[in-house]
Amino acid sequence: MEYRIEKDTMGEVKVPADKLWGAQTERSKNNFKIGAAASMPLEVIYGFAYLKKAAAYTNCDLGVLSPEKRDAIAKVCDEILNGIHDDQFPLVIWQTGSGTQSNMNVNEVIANRAHQLAGKTIGEGEKTLQPNDDVNKSQSSNDTFPTGMHIAAYKKLVEVTIPGVEQLRDTLQQKSQDYKNVVKIGRTHFMDATPLTLGQEFSGYVAQLNYGLKALQNTLQHLAELALGGTAVGTGLNTPAGYNEKVADYISEFTGLPFVTAANKFEALAAHDAMVETHGALKQLAVSLNKIGNDIRMLASGPRSGIGEIIIPANEPGSSIMPGKVNPTQCEALTMVCAQVMGNDVAVTVGGAQGQFELNVFKPVMIANVLQSAQLIGDACVSFEQNCAAGIEPNHERIQDLLDKSLMLVTALNTKIGYYKAAEIANTAHKNGTTLKEEAIKLGYVTEEEFNQWVKPEDMVGELK
Amino acid sequence: MEYRIEKDTMGEVKVPADKLWGAQTERSKNNFKIGAAASMPLEVIYGFAYLKKAAAYTNCDLGVLSPEKRDAIAKVCDEILNGIHDDQFPLVIWQTGSGTQSNMNVNEVIANRAHQLAGKTIGEGEKTLQPNDDVNKSQSSNDTFPTGMHIAAYKKLVEVTIPGVEQLRDTLQQKSQDYKNVVKIGRTHFMDATPLTLGQEFSGYVAQLNYGLKALQNTLQHLAELALGGTAVGTGLNTPAGYNEKVADYISEFTGLPFVTAANKFEALAAHDAMVETHGALKQLAVSLNKIGNDIRMLASGPRSGIGEIIIPANEPGSSIMPGKVNPTQCEALTMVCAQVMGNDVAVTVGGAQGQFELNVFKPVMIANVLQSAQLIGDACVSFEQNCAAGIEPNHERIQDLLDKSLMLVTALNTKIGYYKAAEIANTAHKNGTTLKEEAIKLGYVTEEEFNQWVKPEDMVGELK
Amino acid sequence: MEYRIEKDTMGEVKVPADKLWGAQTERSKNNFKIGAAASMPLEVIYGFAYLKKAAAYTNCDLGVLSPEKRDAIAKVCDEILNGIHDDQFPLVIWQTGSGTQSNMNVNEVIANRAHQLAGKTIGEGEKTLQPNDDVNKSQSSNDTFPTGMHIAAYKKLVEVTIPGVEQLRDTLQQKSQDYKNVVKIGRTHFMDATPLTLGQEFSGYVAQLNYGLKALQNTLQHLAELALGGTAVGTGLNTPAGYNEKVADYISEFTGLPFVTAANKFEALAAHDAMVETHGALKQLAVSLNKIGNDIRMLASGPRSGIGEIIIPANEPGSSIMPGKVNPTQCEALTMVCAQVMGNDVAVTVGGAQGQFELNVFKPVMIANVLQSAQLIGDACVSFEQNCAAGIEPNHERIQDLLDKSLMLVTALNTKIGYYKAAEIANTAHKNGTTLKEEAIKLGYVTEEEFNQWVKPEDMVGELK
Amino acid sequence: MEYRIEKDTMGEVKVPADKLWGAQTERSKNNFKIGAAASMPLEVIYGFAYLKKAAAYTNCDLGVLSPEKRDAIAKVCDEILNGIHDDQFPLVIWQTGSGTQSNMNVNEVIANRAHQLAGKTIGEGEKTLQPNDDVNKSQSSNDTFPTGMHIAAYKKLVEVTIPGVEQLRDTLQQKSQDYKNVVKIGRTHFMDATPLTLGQEFSGYVAQLNYGLKALQNTLQHLAELALGGTAVGTGLNTPAGYNEKVADYISEFTGLPFVTAANKFEALAAHDAMVETHGALKQLAVSLNKIGNDIRMLASGPRSGIGEIIIPANEPGSSIMPGKVNPTQCEALTMVCAQVMGNDVAVTVGGAQGQFELNVFKPVMIANVLQSAQLIGDACVSFEQNCAAGIEPNHERIQDLLDKSLMLVTALNTKIGYYKAAEIANTAHKNGTTLKEEAIKLGYVTEEEFNQWVKPEDMVGELK
Repeated sequence: MEYRIEKDTMGEVKVPADKLWGAQTERSKNNFKIGAAASMPLEVIYGFAYLKKAAAYTNCDLGVLSPEKRDAIAKVCDEILNGIHDDQFPLVIWQTGSGTQSNMNVNEVIANRAHQLAGKTIGEGEKTLQPNDDVNKSQSSNDTFPTGMHIAAYKKLVEVTIPGVEQLRDTLQQKSQDYKNVVKIGRTHFMDATPLTLGQEFSGYVAQLNYGLKALQNTLQHLAELALGGTAVGTGLNTPAGYNEKVADYISEFTGLPFVTAANKFEALAAHDAMVETHGALKQLAVSLNKIGNDIRMLASGPRSGIGEIIIPANEPGSSIMPGKVNPTQCEALTMVCAQVMGNDVAVTVGGAQGQFELNVFKPVMIANVLQSAQLIGDACVSFEQNCAAGIEPNHERIQDLLDKSLMLVTALNTKIGYYKAAEIANTAHKNGTTLKEEAIKLGYVTEEEFNQWVKPEDMVGELK
Repeated sequence: MEYRIEKDTMGEVKVPADKLWGAQTERSKNNFKIGAAASMPLEVIYGFAYLKKAAAYTNCDLGVLSPEKRDAIAKVCDEILNGIHDDQFPLVIWQTGSGTQSNMNVNEVIANRAHQLAGKTIGEGEKTLQPNDDVNKSQSSNDTFPTGMHIAAYKKLVEVTIPGVEQLRDTLQQKSQDYKNVVKIGRTHFMDATPLTLGQEFSGYVAQLNYGLKALQNTLQHLAELALGGTAVGTGLNTPAGYNEKVADYISEFTGLPFVTAANKFEALAAHDAMVETHGALKQLAVSLNKIGNDIRMLASGPRSGIGEIIIPANEPGSSIMPGKVNPTQCEALTMVCAQVMGNDVAVTVGGAQGQFELNVFKPVMIANVLQSAQLIGDACVSFEQNCAAGIEPNHERIQDLLDKSLMLVTALNTKIGYYKAAEIANTAHKNGTTLKEEAIKLGYVTEEEFNQWVKPEDMVGELK
Repeated sequence: MEYRIEKDTMGEVKVPADKLWGAQTERSKNNFKIGAAASMPLEVIYGFAYLKKAAAYTNCDLGVLSPEKRDAIAKVCDEILNGIHDDQFPLVIWQTGSGTQSNMNVNEVIANRAHQLAGKTIGEGEKTLQPNDDVNKSQSSNDTFPTGMHIAAYKKLVEVTIPGVEQLRDTLQQKSQDYKNVVKIGRTHFMDATPLTLGQEFSGYVAQLNYGLKALQNTLQHLAELALGGTAVGTGLNTPAGYNEKVADYISEFTGLPFVTAANKFEALAAHDAMVETHGALKQLAVSLNKIGNDIRMLASGPRSGIGEIIIPANEPGSSIMPGKVNPTQCEALTMVCAQVMGNDVAVTVGGAQGQFELNVFKPVMIANVLQSAQLIGDACVSFEQNCAAGIEPNHERIQDLLDKSLMLVTALNTKIGYYKAAEIANTAHKNGTTLKEEAIKLGYVTEEEFNQWVKPEDMVGELK
Repeated sequence: MEYRIEKDTMGEVKVPADKLWGAQTERSKNNFKIGAAASMPLEVIYGFAYLKKAAAYTNCDLGVLSPEKRDAIAKVCDEILNGIHDDQFPLVIWQTGSGTQSNMNVNEVIANRAHQLAGKTIGEGEKTLQPNDDVNKSQSSNDTFPTGMHIAAYKKLVEVTIPGVEQLRDTLQQKSQDYKNVVKIGRTHFMDATPLTLGQEFSGYVAQLNYGLKALQNTLQHLAELALGGTAVGTGLNTPAGYNEKVADYISEFTGLPFVTAANKFEALAAHDAMVETHGALKQLAVSLNKIGNDIRMLASGPRSGIGEIIIPANEPGSSIMPGKVNPTQCEALTMVCAQVMGNDVAVTVGGAQGQFELNVFKPVMIANVLQSAQLIGDACVSFEQNCAAGIEPNHERIQDLLDKSLMLVTALNTKIGYYKAAEIANTAHKNGTTLKEEAIKLGYVTEEEFNQWVKPEDMVGELK
């Protein structure tokens, strides 16, 4: 491989000749060989691209950066956002906890790429842009990295997580409506209970997701606050007057999202409770989805020896010789995602709890977990919706059969023939393995006509909504 | 011990003669000898007392319970709420996961106590109230227990947690104001950084708690929704028309809190995402408090070999021979509470994720953890505020000394003598273990007058808010 | 209430006259009003009683304490171990993180009680024992509290946890043996699969518990190491030569457990990885028990619309009108315990990770969680064993019925009539809702005799172990 | 892109022409678009390669597979293990929870690649190997995937985790030896305490890692047990006699690791407590490393306003103008890894707890987390060792200065001049901000000579080990 020499305040470093990054990136690459390469999420890099461009515009507006430099910075940022330079960000999550090295990675790439775009060869001639003095002007790693975190997380939530959950919610809502008259046995303690409709059962899932969405949306306001302008310790040292509001406005404009400058920059650097808050809502969704995925798995179980009240799509060969064995693979993927999100929540919690003085240095691990959870929940909901939920059908025959055999329906006779005779019917049916109707008639307490008229599960399910 | 005989559908049970509970409570007591006795939180019992009284009023209003029975029930509920019968609830958290047995415990105590209040001896004569038919009328364990959970949690939050956090927040806010002009060294990566004021540092803590309070308040709306009226599976079987709204109104009236009937009863029985949501916010507060407690601990460290920038109250003998050794015991209690809350969050998560079909059967463990966390955070904030935060004083001498010795202040000379000379001053001072001023003058780059005029930490801390 | 005056280095404190504790206990009681009163586990106090007695014997042997004082200390320690003074330890978990105040509580109670036993009134006359100089001789809170933790945890494991798990394991082992010939349908992905025996299914539970027990026993060696002799920072300052081995020997003798002095006292004070290690094994058991409890719950589900392959004891009224509805309440209690233990594991982890320099100050929260988990697992296993597992019976009729209807048995025909014909039989049976036998005969591929001879589930379950 | 047509029992699927996989892989790729592509760890694929080869050898030995097919399978497995086909495994973690689709991915790649190696074009002519009948012979996803999990995890532990931790342990051990005479102030409660040596402080870290290594090694025995031979539900249906022991022997031979057949196959499929157990030990190591990383971070803090007792290597530019600001970046990477591992532990726990009947369907998420944690801990230890620990040097001047100023040394005078005079000296020094020596002489209690002779910190640190 060919190399060129890059320099920083510690001296010279050999960098692969075809790469845009500089000395500090290369040092980090060598000093932190931990886990998979390039694990720092690209979403964070894109967040940096937005903020670097916004800072350039703001600095220019406030008279501390030339229009030429602003445009040079902005042009590379746009390239980055177009995904052209994805392979120029080789650093890992497990670097300095402030994310300084990824900030420098971005600064170096912008400076070197601007040099190329100016028609020059990297390392030759006067620098078009200084990574620190120009690209990082009015910034510090300590305020840029959290800003990149918030941009990345907010975008992921509104672009992936929320639409994904809503897509599943809508389909479940439709199923709830479609099956609002499908009366089935209820189950409490995993034991037979009084009936409800399949639509009612699904309405509970819809309600769960709606609460989860609301909880997630409640966290967006905190996430919309940006640290940029706080610089090293939150005081905004070395930023021009008016910088922090203006730079947030530009970020808001460039992203189309309602970002504002953080009310308290000290909190914004030293704590990442916004990440904790957001992930808490993601974890709540994981709890809900685990319940839903597990219920669907069990409702579809069988084909002969399970519950079998619903039929889910067969997306892949189950057993080649075993017809009807449709493994609930989407439920399994979904609930595995839930397990991961529950774990990630603890990683975010542990990282968030350990900030010290003016800086929390668990930034990369926190945002990596937030982004993974947000992506997984969004993707898993879409996958589950498309490949499972949308195709759910009631197994009407099975539902009816279980309902007919149920002993819980005897409660409907209480008001007609009294509690004790009703209980006698149920007990006898249980002992003999027969149906309520058979025993009710055999015992002479009701006629078949009366039974049919009085024991109507559809009258036991309340108002349908 | 003397016993009387109580009966249920399974037969006779011996119950201590001086106890108000009945057969089902006694069975549970015998069948679940797990952990400490009577661990079911009394707050849940009180929640039941509110809802039993509300149900009695509603049932009476709707014509299914006599005014006499209503009043008999209400009277005992009031006694329970006055704490008179605290020793009548011997059951543990680790019982049936629906909390049925605690519901029956309440039903039995109300029925037996009403019999006493009617001037009769328990077990003799016709029952004044039937535990199931009267006290539990229009109810099921499956909707009463979650209702009791919500009442208990909501009350704890507004009576203990939120006031406790606010008390600490207010004191930290005052400290932030008091010390807004105390300029001190900042620290990032636990390393010396540019200065800020002690007031700014504390303002970050205030901001954290304010975000935490807001996050917690965001969860109250979900918590305000009550399952009552859903009965066994959410359909409201066996409840009179209008029951669910009316009973929520009565609970709201009796508690003075804005409870409403849950929009979807199926969710309200089968999932307890409201608990997950609320505990998520408590966990966020634990994350914030862990940072605050840890910072205070470190800022107060010393007396000679630590940071020592603040002085905290000495509340108990540290070392008898070691003056100035004031152990940060309140910080330790606070951060231990945080560790517990972070753990409890996982217990709530795991319980919440495992609901099945129409019922989540992790109700007792979920509410027990929510209540413990809510209590601990509230109490710990008050304890920390009273015994530590309120007494925090800056160690002005130490703060000034560290500031004077700091090499970070050299950044103030950049614009005066240029980056390279400034760096030379700092490097020389670092090498020689001297101060910036000494070396700056010795190197001949500035006069003492210039140094004093240019290097003013108070000019580096931004606008004070 | 009447009070007496106690003194410490900070001055006078009013203490309830009927209490044995002194000034430092009272201060802690007033300064840490967090959560339930007296929450510090008594097991830790008993651990202190063992170690105080052992220290007294060792100090006497090594010539630094008189035999009279030794005996005075030992006598009170024996009283404490007999449970006579349980109400003399009012402090909470949420105190100083070193547990100093509970150490002083024990020192004060021993000193004051010894004074009583010497026939004197507390506070009058020359002190029989000095709390610090005599009772705490050659000790520090920093080495006594971890010693108390290890004694308490080790005893709990061998007295409660391990016997409890073994009791359940033995019963499940017996069931596995009893039902080794009960062939039933298997389930993978919650879907029908090839058969196994009920005994085999239970043998998996037995294996899980055996692995868990082994994992737990693996942690005992670390737990057997005692910090005592490290004093304040691990150097053993102020202890006589030979003290640490000797005091461990005495503790070993008094408890009958194989305690030894810790190889490295610095680790023993500054880290509590032994607690993390032990709780990790408890958490593993919780994972196993959650699987077992959940399986049993589902196997017993029904009576009509669930799996219903086993029958569990009815210990309490389920539904009064619904015969056969036996709620799996013991499974619910067990799995709630598992959720708690999984949460406690995080509390222990978070506490363990935050030691600083020479001391971990999350001692009380760590031991409280270890003890709770150890107790809950032991108790829940016993409760589950006595009230559920021991009474489990196969529902032979249901098992046979599901087996007969199963389509998975068709695999037995592959080698007889070829894969394609076998698959055709299964497909037809699935489509028609009939049995394999019906369709196999109707299709003319086998005679009834052949079918009965070839399709034998009992030949598909492998060697029975 | 060009495609070819592959078939399975559900019909035809278009597969990229240049890929070796078949229909079932492609279906999974399309049905599970969740998170990053190809996230299933390659280590699991390699585990499959070992076991497929071992199964081929065993099947051949037992007469159910021809030597030609055995060799064809083995040859491709060797290619896979040489990393030639890494891009042929495009599936994600979030697929079916049994990992069936990755098993089929391996089966398909082996079959198609063998066809190529036989000089034929994929899809043309008679198949060289049948993916199911030959490559998967005597196997099921349900026993192969857990076998692959155990092989992957065991190899990672012995190749990455354990050597990495040992490397760090050895360096810390060397440092402990090197600095065994460097007496320094101790700190408890983050407050000044009696002295110890730097070597003693580091010996605590060494002890932690040794306990952690031992705990990890304790888990290897369970991990060495392989599920292979259990097939679909644990009964070993369709395996030849002697298969399970023999196949484990081959795996042991091929990997050079002590694998054995699992004693109970039902447990081995339905539970993955071995994963829970192993990750529990990884989590314990994370707890230890968090303490170590945090201590190093704080000991190196400064350069002027922190603890500053050690100097760590400067690996990258800190502040360009701020000499001596060496950010503890390796500590930060290490403690971020610890946070991740603590989170991963919960993911493994939650997955492990939710097995049902004969199969746990959280296999992929469990192994992915175990492998990530094992890799991260190993890598982070090496990175921390090379880039930080190896270069740690004491800052002797600072250590001595803090020691000299310490008030805790006064305890050495107790036995010489009595407790009260000693305390007076300390109090006066604290009040005046002076040293013990100054005040001791000024008060006239000792001469300078006496002070120097009596107050020797090196006499307070116990026997050096």
